Amino acid sequence: MILDHINNPQDLKALPIDDLPQLAQEIRELIIKTTAENGGHLAPNLGVVELTIALHYVFDTPADKIIWDVGHQSYAHKILTGRKDQFATIRQPGGVSGFCSRNESEYDCFTTGHSSNSVSVAMGMAEARDLSGQDHHVIAVIGDGAISGGMALEALNHAGDLETPMLVVLNDNEMSINHNVGALNRYLSHIRSHPKYSRAKNNVHQALDHLPGLGKPLTRAISNFKNGVKSLLVPGIFFEYLGFTYLGPTDGHNIRELIEILRQAATIKRPVLLHTITVKGKGYEPAELHPHNWHGVEPFDITTGQPKSNNLHLTYTAAFGEALCGLAEEDPNIIAITAAMTDGTGLTGFKKQFPSRFFDAGIAEQHAVTFAAGLANAGKKPVVAIYSSFIQRAYDQIMEDVCLQKLPVVLAIDRAGIVGNDGYTHQGIYDLSFLLTIPGLTVMAPADARELRMMLRFALNSERPSALRYPKAQDRELPLVLPKIELGKAVILREGGDLCFFAIGSMVSVALDAAALLNKRGIQARVVNARFAAPLDDLMLRDCIASCHGRIITAEENVQEGGFGAACQMLLAHSGADITTAALPHDFIAQGCRVQQLEKYGLSAERLAEMAYNQWFRD
Amino acid sequence: MILDHINNPQDLKALPIDDLPQLAQEIRELIIKTTAENGGHLAPNLGVVELTIALHYVFDTPADKIIWDVGHQSYAHKILTGRKDQFATIRQPGGVSGFCSRNESEYDCFTTGHSSNSVSVAMGMAEARDLSGQDHHVIAVIGDGAISGGMALEALNHAGDLETPMLVVLNDNEMSINHNVGALNRYLSHIRSHPKYSRAKNNVHQALDHLPGLGKPLTRAISNFKNGVKSLLVPGIFFEYLGFTYLGPTDGHNIRELIEILRQAATIKRPVLLHTITVKGKGYEPAELHPHNWHGVEPFDITTGQPKSNNLHLTYTAAFGEALCGLAEEDPNIIAITAAMTDGTGLTGFKKQFPSRFFDAGIAEQHAVTFAAGLANAGKKPVVAIYSSFIQRAYDQIMEDVCLQKLPVVLAIDRAGIVGNDGYTHQGIYDLSFLLTIPGLTVMAPADARELRMMLRFALNSERPSALRYPKAQDRELPLVLPKIELGKAVILREGGDLCFFAIGSMVSVALDAAALLNKRGIQARVVNARFAAPLDDLMLRDCIASCHGRIITAEENVQEGGFGAACQMLLAHSGADITTAALPHDFIAQGCRVQQLEKYGLSAERLAEMAYNQWFRD
Repeated sequence: MILDHINNPQDLKALPIDDLPQLAQEIRELIIKTTAENGGHLAPNLGVVELTIALHYVFDTPADKIIWDVGHQSYAHKILTGRKDQFATIRQPGGVSGFCSRNESEYDCFTTGHSSNSVSVAMGMAEARDLSGQDHHVIAVIGDGAISGGMALEALNHAGDLETPMLVVLNDNEMSINHNVGALNRYLSHIRSHPKYSRAKNNVHQALDHLPGLGKPLTRAISNFKNGVKSLLVPGIFFEYLGFTYLGPTDGHNIRELIEILRQAATIKRPVLLHTITVKGKGYEPAELHPHNWHGVEPFDITTGQPKSNNLHLTYTAAFGEALCGLAEEDPNIIAITAAMTDGTGLTGFKKQFPSRFFDAGIAEQHAVTFAAGLANAGKKPVVAIYSSFIQRAYDQIMEDVCLQKLPVVLAIDRAGIVGNDGYTHQGIYDLSFLLTIPGLTVMAPADARELRMMLRFALNSERPSALRYPKAQDRELPLVLPKIELGKAVILREGGDLCFFAIGSMVSVALDAAALLNKRGIQARVVNARFAAPLDDLMLRDCIASCHGRIITAEENVQEGGFGAACQMLLAHSGADITTAALPHDFIAQGCRVQQLEKYGLSAERLAEMAYNQWFRD
Repeated sequence: MILDHINNPQDLKALPIDDLPQLAQEIRELIIKTTAENGGHLAPNLGVVELTIALHYVFDTPADKIIWDVGHQSYAHKILTGRKDQFATIRQPGGVSGFCSRNESEYDCFTTGHSSNSVSVAMGMAEARDLSGQDHHVIAVIGDGAISGGMALEALNHAGDLETPMLVVLNDNEMSINHNVGALNRYLSHIRSHPKYSRAKNNVHQALDHLPGLGKPLTRAISNFKNGVKSLLVPGIFFEYLGFTYLGPTDGHNIRELIEILRQAATIKRPVLLHTITVKGKGYEPAELHPHNWHGVEPFDITTGQPKSNNLHLTYTAAFGEALCGLAEEDPNIIAITAAMTDGTGLTGFKKQFPSRFFDAGIAEQHAVTFAAGLANAGKKPVVAIYSSFIQRAYDQIMEDVCLQKLPVVLAIDRAGIVGNDGYTHQGIYDLSFLLTIPGLTVMAPADARELRMMLRFALNSERPSALRYPKAQDRELPLVLPKIELGKAVILREGGDLCFFAIGSMVSVALDAAALLNKRGIQARVVNARFAAPLDDLMLRDCIASCHGRIITAEENVQEGGFGAACQMLLAHSGADITTAALPHDFIAQGCRVQQLEKYGLSAERLAEMAYNQWFRD
């Protein structure tokens, strides 16, 4: 095994180029084996093995800086930069992160997870280098999905104008997480589809060879003419317009060619965009065939490609997707919008059933939300399904374009709460807090999948801006009949006069269990399903104070600061209530098992019961 | 006067084209006269008078929909759509809004104020139209500064791909608010600088005429070749790559030409970008000469162009700019970044004094913040100066790229609080709330300009992510010596044992005045300058509870929900304190006089004193 002798990029550089394809093969096998055990981002990582080797072979990391956009493609980078032996712990509690992490290695320049920021980071580091009179290289590696995100385009526009020397490697695998969308991607396809331009160095002669043909089309339509010019002339001129020197497209699986072109790029003292074509899932047949199924995977059997545990429990995500399809059958005005997460947000069925009413905005959360506002402004009922941590990107748009306009956009916020193995950047634990700062937004969280369906229907009929947030978890159906949803109305699920659990979302069933535990000690807890974080049920809260000696424990799967409990506390100032807020700590939370983390932070039935007991009943 | 007879677009359509230049002149005079009285966005409005007339002449509003990006150029639109007689009230309390407002007129399709969202809104409305089988036109009018904002590019990319029939009018005046930046703008300049391509209809023949010249440059360098091709071939091909049919450039002050090309655009059933060249400030010489000084203006004398009141009081903005220059003289690592607001954020002096350490990221708040993170990641000390309401766009970047990384980026948040005449979309009244949701961010607000300087120095030396926020107001220097800033430490400004005002930022001097009023009634209020909203001074708060009978009134120029007072209340749960939070209501707040609005919402000395008296001292 060549890999046995590679512990850092210096070891790599000592290898002859001829050994590198073998090394790539070994790295690929390690990635497949480990991901089959732990789950993870398989397809993106298999696509960049050769690119990663070539980058570390040509550049001198960590002096030279590589920023991996999102970082879900950094496995080979981790293996080559001293983390080979810990690689088996990837995405496990306490183990190596599934993304880049500044805390983990000096080779990880930036903690990543959210898309499209790498060009901005790299540009900042490159300008700092120049101001400090240093001369190392700064490289951003970004996918073709991520590069169409607004902030990446902002950064290209700025870097191209300032002529900041930096290298942007466009890792073009023809996909973001789902199939790519957008005109820019069409344009990239166009470049890819012209094999005669696939050799690296921009070849003026080739381009000129075709120019005589331009003399003829005087009679052609303008658009044909333009297309002709576009396809015949310089590939990548779009990026040249943005001020970048374009190199490529080049075969991202040919290490020798990659090394050659990277060495060429390294000599150019201005912004360079190197366009490299890779195959997502490369080297593992099931992933090559169905790359979008293999973007992020649960543990699987390598031979069959089947998931190890075939979990048939209903997730909130699936419940949302099914419910929306049901509602859309009844109401032709319902529209579904995703930001490059059709599968992840449960919209695959909707897309099939209602193709004309489904929109994938690409990795563009800002546009997705305001596009929805435009639809609502013209009488449609748009539902925007985005993960909690990614909808942070659209905070301003929710405020200005949805809520200020009082438009009935429904935000379906998936992955709200602890997300498990993805860790820091993907935790959906701030949304109640930031959504509650926005005037006029109804904020709900369902206690089970049935309630999610009810809330979705309610939101679609409410004629107000609404958000519903639900966790990355399986449904656990409450053993209760659920009354219909009324704006700002909480419901009592269990009576008791000793204290009250005022819980929302995933914490409702936990609170019911806590009440059962307290019951064994002779303590009777009322359990209220708050349903709404905004507007809060003031009357119910005051009834709970009156009925439960003022003893209230709020519970939410969200940070404490500015969250649901804080809002209850604010509302009940001067009420005489004795409120305790059970919530997550105000911090960034690492990868780990959701159930264990909830327990750790006091959000299990045992911990809630203990909290109540210690607070009021320990003599 | 032709304008006397024009009360709506139908009246306009009845005019012969030959009358329109005269109408333009009359509208221009009305805009100049009114803006000279009320202040407002003079230069942008003078630039689009002919364009506005042409749009309403060709299209059938309100059935056809026009979305004005930002909306600060909508004055002529307002005059033509039934608001001529109320136009004198523009930007005044209770008057016509200085931006578009859905509440104001059916001709204002969308309430605007934040840049770069018009293409997303228009695309949503256009898709809704198509799904509903309607056939009206949807038009977005967007400036060349705004179109380089990330979300506009996201929307162009999406619309171009779906081929949504819509018209984007690119109002290219070579400026955003300051001089434009970015490669895209360079590209637009390039188109503009070729007068032979300035006639409207893309002229293939013209382009082909130049093709023979391409045979020669075989010996030229690649880049020369490419530039040659770029400049000779189709103007606007960048937008064609994004899937739009490009028309232009056209003279934005030639009404006849505009009408002709708009009629042509209206026949094209796919995305069209019409590039029109306008002159910001057109028709008012001082504004034509110095358009960036005339973007937004205070009331002025029309003849001299001088402001009516020459206010020499120091603003927080000016104090910030001066302080940063002083600090930058001492520390070469300090970098200043703005997002198209060099003047507005007080950075004009810094730009002159330290040109290599000054960056204007353009209208691109997301990129600006993450670019700063990259600089900080490489050892620099970046200060990002952005208005409070616009930094909402970078919420995710502050969370993920600054605070998760623990990078010492300083956010200098101007216009934090009530902003006066700009109204709804520009109110900086949510930032304490949304910033407090972000773990690890130091959040400060100075009580006067001296303290602003001290806080800026403190932030730059703190090696932590920090934000300081200050209002659009003049300094009122506290009659006190200010002790040095310590992290999370509040200071007592006035002793008293009957109650405590725990105030932050602009509310500190108001609280001192309130204490003086209470003193006349024999009530002694302690006044604490909190300085920090995060971390809060827990010890000081508990001392105030002990020393002031638990009676605390917090005061902040920010909404109540999730703000400074709410955080104090959270911290003091179970402390026995009797806390009242004086803050703005959780709502969107219209234009008005800042002082009057603060009074209205209980944030004046009189109202605070009254609040204290009624709460605890009325017999």
